[in-house]
Amino acid sequence: MPEIRRNLVTGEWVIIATERARRPEDFRRGVVHRTSEPHNPNCPFCPGNEERTPAATYTLPGDAPGSWRVRVVHNKFAALDSEGDVARRGNGYTLAMPGVGRHEVIVETPLHNLPLALLPPSATADVVRTWRDRVRELYADPRVEHVIVFKNYGESAGTSLEHPHSQIVGTPIVPGQVRDRLEAAMRHFADHGRCLYCHTLDEELRDGSRIVDDNASFVAFVPYAALSPFHLWIYPRHHSAYFGDLSDAQLLDLASILSRSLARVRNALDDPDYNIVLRSLSPAEREVRYGHWYLSLVPRVTRAAGFELGTGMFINTALPEASAAFLRETATTSSGAVSPPD
Amino acid sequence: MPEIRRNLVTGEWVIIATERARRPEDFRRGVVHRTSEPHNPNCPFCPGNEERTPAATYTLPGDAPGSWRVRVVHNKFAALDSEGDVARRGNGYTLAMPGVGRHEVIVETPLHNLPLALLPPSATADVVRTWRDRVRELYADPRVEHVIVFKNYGESAGTSLEHPHSQIVGTPIVPGQVRDRLEAAMRHFADHGRCLYCHTLDEELRDGSRIVDDNASFVAFVPYAALSPFHLWIYPRHHSAYFGDLSDAQLLDLASILSRSLARVRNALDDPDYNIVLRSLSPAEREVRYGHWYLSLVPRVTRAAGFELGTGMFINTALPEASAAFLRETATTSSGAVSPPD
Repeated sequence: MPEIRRNLVTGEWVIIATERARRPEDFRRGVVHRTSEPHNPNCPFCPGNEERTPAATYTLPGDAPGSWRVRVVHNKFAALDSEGDVARRGNGYTLAMPGVGRHEVIVETPLHNLPLALLPPSATADVVRTWRDRVRELYADPRVEHVIVFKNYGESAGTSLEHPHSQIVGTPIVPGQVRDRLEAAMRHFADHGRCLYCHTLDEELRDGSRIVDDNASFVAFVPYAALSPFHLWIYPRHHSAYFGDLSDAQLLDLASILSRSLARVRNALDDPDYNIVLRSLSPAEREVRYGHWYLSLVPRVTRAAGFELGTGMFINTALPEASAAFLRETATTSSGAVSPPD
Repeated sequence: MPEIRRNLVTGEWVIIATERARRPEDFRRGVVHRTSEPHNPNCPFCPGNEERTPAATYTLPGDAPGSWRVRVVHNKFAALDSEGDVARRGNGYTLAMPGVGRHEVIVETPLHNLPLALLPPSATADVVRTWRDRVRELYADPRVEHVIVFKNYGESAGTSLEHPHSQIVGTPIVPGQVRDRLEAAMRHFADHGRCLYCHTLDEELRDGSRIVDDNASFVAFVPYAALSPFHLWIYPRHHSAYFGDLSDAQLLDLASILSRSLARVRNALDDPDYNIVLRSLSPAEREVRYGHWYLSLVPRVTRAAGFELGTGMFINTALPEASAAFLRETATTSSGAVSPPD
């Protein structure tokens, strides 16, 4: 019998279609086909090709003169223009504003073929530090109302660029979905007197069956009503509304649990495509008791279709407890082979 | 300069990324690769293989004894079980119910290789009649709170089954997204004294630049804030909340405008993958003045990625007015070649 579970955070019901659920190992790709060289002379993100991107807005310098560990640039194909003013216009039916905001690419490593899942811990910490520093910087732009950090890995996750990179966008409006979730979190706080996300984390820790990993600052778990197989949430253990408030010590803990989670996903499912999304409130809201930043890691092993488009509900063909157990039992170290043979 | 437009119906902002917008013809697949035989002996939906599916719940009979024009069966891999009672259970954090509901497959034609876009008008009318009749039937199940009709065409739209088919699901809850949109429509009615969808249609007809087609009962247009390139809405011209109230005369008009729209999309974009979604209120709400059923046709020419996951906002890389003009100027007849050469 399938089960329909309510996701308190998204506010949506999820169909856990256990009748057609596949075993966790059935979601493996069965083939690892990402192989390439550490340097690609045609790649705009590879060292030596810096003039092929706009000037860097941020770098973490390397040891050699002129080298870098992480490099941030304006997105050459930006969804939003960094120049201009924000002014709404409309006629009562139409409502529009200029597409002004910020859109940057974070080049995560100089090495073309070293994916985030295989970066050494110190390099992953560099990436997390860059996310934090750019979130702070983009929120300093008075036109920016909301900042989202995300990563697309692989074609089905939305990118055909191989060089390891993530993106950060500052939008001049708060997206409706973000506002809706915030309203639900405020209502939860009003009803229960506690943060919805702290409540979620307490209940997940008490139950335990969906916990995948944890350390002093973070817990990684498959949500009770996960939208898709192996969907992972990484929550700060202690209440924090704004990601920009991440301390240097927490930064190392986040890098560690993220590395381990990515290695599990890679090892368990044969290097699947995935998205990462970092959701946070703004610095103006840093003191609120109802909001809580977190990171989502979504392996792209199934596909949203007409049902999801038309209802907003998801059909998850794996039992969240089984997804969690499978990931929990998977090694957190990688083979180390950057270019495994096909 | 990109533009950010508010979609009144979805309640969400859409980034129209004109800087990286491609010309409409750049969205063509460039290859038509769907070729197959009219009968596939291994296909469970082909005539002669009826015993490989559950018993039919509905058929439109053909002329020959035992033959059929349209056939509806329980989905063998149903997301919801048709047996059982609906009872919520939970502990204050968890909230779940048995996955009970209805999930049927509508086999649209006996011919394995005759896609909906190429069906003759009378056969398309058969499909639309079946949708209407099954919507009525599923709502007669007291456990069903919401019914959604949808079609997945092609792998990126969520199906690998070639035989032309659509699906209908009856869920035991109203999806949160549906409820949210209904609330927005109620608020619009309260503020403006008129149906949000009738208002939208009036404004689109007055402007005209995004209209693609129309007839006595329906209008096909690209929304002002379309979520993706060539996204089409087909609205009933006259206010109607419940799709099950479609009359036989309107049924023919819907079949006609849908056929013409599918032919345009197929001809303009080289037979792209697409989804169809039919959104409607329930028969209990048929008299309300704030709701309005409609059909969405969504060619899958771009992909949602981390930004869309994390914000609920979409980036549309085509100007809606350009998408509409391109479709409007495309022929509504097909070459007639069911199996065009590669």
